[in-house]
Amino acid sequence: MKALVYHGPDNKAWEDVPDATVQEPTDVVVRVDTTTICGTDLHILQGDVPAVTDGRILGHEAVGTVTEVGDAVRGFSVGDRVLVPAITKCGRCEYCQRGMPSHCQTVGGIGWIFGHLIDGTQAEYVRVPYADTSLYAVPEDVSDQQAIFLADSLPTGYEVGVLAGNVRPGDTVAVVGAGAVGLAAVLTTGLWGASKVIAVDTNKFRLEKAIEFGATDTVEAGPGAVDEVTALTDGLGVDVAIEAVGYPETLLTAASLVRPGGTIANIGVHGVPVEIPMQDMWIRNVTMTMGLVDTVSIPTLLKMVAGGRIPAEKMGTHSFTFDRIDEAYDVFKNAAANQALKVVITPG
Amino acid sequence: MKALVYHGPDNKAWEDVPDATVQEPTDVVVRVDTTTICGTDLHILQGDVPAVTDGRILGHEAVGTVTEVGDAVRGFSVGDRVLVPAITKCGRCEYCQRGMPSHCQTVGGIGWIFGHLIDGTQAEYVRVPYADTSLYAVPEDVSDQQAIFLADSLPTGYEVGVLAGNVRPGDTVAVVGAGAVGLAAVLTTGLWGASKVIAVDTNKFRLEKAIEFGATDTVEAGPGAVDEVTALTDGLGVDVAIEAVGYPETLLTAASLVRPGGTIANIGVHGVPVEIPMQDMWIRNVTMTMGLVDTVSIPTLLKMVAGGRIPAEKMGTHSFTFDRIDEAYDVFKNAAANQALKVVITPG
Repeated sequence: MKALVYHGPDNKAWEDVPDATVQEPTDVVVRVDTTTICGTDLHILQGDVPAVTDGRILGHEAVGTVTEVGDAVRGFSVGDRVLVPAITKCGRCEYCQRGMPSHCQTVGGIGWIFGHLIDGTQAEYVRVPYADTSLYAVPEDVSDQQAIFLADSLPTGYEVGVLAGNVRPGDTVAVVGAGAVGLAAVLTTGLWGASKVIAVDTNKFRLEKAIEFGATDTVEAGPGAVDEVTALTDGLGVDVAIEAVGYPETLLTAASLVRPGGTIANIGVHGVPVEIPMQDMWIRNVTMTMGLVDTVSIPTLLKMVAGGRIPAEKMGTHSFTFDRIDEAYDVFKNAAANQALKVVITPG
Repeated sequence: MKALVYHGPDNKAWEDVPDATVQEPTDVVVRVDTTTICGTDLHILQGDVPAVTDGRILGHEAVGTVTEVGDAVRGFSVGDRVLVPAITKCGRCEYCQRGMPSHCQTVGGIGWIFGHLIDGTQAEYVRVPYADTSLYAVPEDVSDQQAIFLADSLPTGYEVGVLAGNVRPGDTVAVVGAGAVGLAAVLTTGLWGASKVIAVDTNKFRLEKAIEFGATDTVEAGPGAVDEVTALTDGLGVDVAIEAVGYPETLLTAASLVRPGGTIANIGVHGVPVEIPMQDMWIRNVTMTMGLVDTVSIPTLLKMVAGGRIPAEKMGTHSFTFDRIDEAYDVFKNAAANQALKVVITPG
């Protein structure tokens, strides 16, 4: 089979590799019908994730068809259309039982293993461990081009942004960074009855998309942004500030936007420490959350997509076939400039 | 009357001042029968709180007797024995109605006004605004020497540590810093059924006190502390790490102690920014809380003290009369070295 293989920083190739096979009785093999690229894949290619070593197949998002089933698998059969989520879960460790498989102790202490600790989904086929507890059946009325964004970006915006941020009816919400994951937060914040959803970004295309995805207001990131957002509230700031970028300045912007008693929900993947002004913040009764997605909201999100409440397909702005996967990476790497959100990659 | 007046950094005097009087119909005047000193008073004397200006009477904790009542006051009468808490609350602003009077918008955007924005409790008498919504009647079976610690330190440890940290039955809890407020957290964590309460401090006296206050384990702060605490758990760290000091290194220690999915509850009053290792922490699904006490747990704590569940009187290690208040400050300033927790100050 063919797959996109990592060969060290800035080095990847779509090349022949041994076929994916069932190795454990709890495995299945899935033929990848649709995959996509995540910001984390870009971090890996920058050499930021040392656990990813030469020879690893990249990718952790897929929709596909089951082609082989291990002896212990009960929930899935050959031919089933499935969603392969970013998180693999054993279902029995303490973290899985608490609904926090992001830290599944069985699969490695971290639930994100595809394209990280084991071979991933940017391939013609992928081996899926713990298939019964990890895979999701895709309902007939959800298309591949919708389901693919439920593998990671939509649940990340929803779980790590909206749910961790504890958005409640009537709340004012700011989303700092309107890339794919920020827009996923915008798209799902409205479900919780937010009174205002304010998108903050430097990029006009993204701010336009934010309105299309349900933002009530947009603010251009920059020196005046905090005053502008505050003026859109009662003068005290927003109830929930969602950070969806991963830089010190964007997290500090989120911290400046939140009112006393509010929540800063950090979604961003950070590469360096952040100097938090605790001398000002300790007294403000602020909560700050952060984390990896659990993907446990996928059943909920699938229902919302099927019911027409979440237009997930809008996340996909560009389509490529496997043989053009390098081009897909190039477009996604400069997503804002290319007016791209997520790319859709299919066998073609 | 006499009161302890702030005259700029490192300058205070027990001196004659105009009598406290009712100024608004919602005021009462309370004769101070017992007061104490808070770490915040020491910060003020270091010049760290610029809002406190020359001439301000210090202190924000008292138990006393009502001596004068404004026309609009309905809940209190002359002669009533009352607790004057650190937080003053109007009872009608959005923050008060949400149970977060730490940010009462009516009294100044911050509920802590005694010894800060108005004259305080280290005095023979104190004017109490919004008496009906701010004061608490002290039950007969709670002594002054117990009630005084419910004005600030006990509710701070309980609300900002235990409640914000979301301690749940079976949880492992570490308390970094076993001064008065850290010990207040130790004293009230057990109420929520923690399986282990691990006190971390450099001071042996405080660690001994921690055991007396209900800690199950103690660990000497230092290079090996994180490993020692982790070894007391299942190897992953504690569910809740409560920080009760207010230095970068103690907050970072708390952050190192918490397991994936856990909570860091910052109680400490910080004076400088803290460089948070977001590059390691973003993926750990950790929540960090911080804030000023609301004192809304006082009715609960009064019942627990009255019922013998919280031996609040153990917080008071040294007693002084008003004329020796300078000495009380000296002892409290070097509390650890003096084997002091809180000082009890009375008219004598």
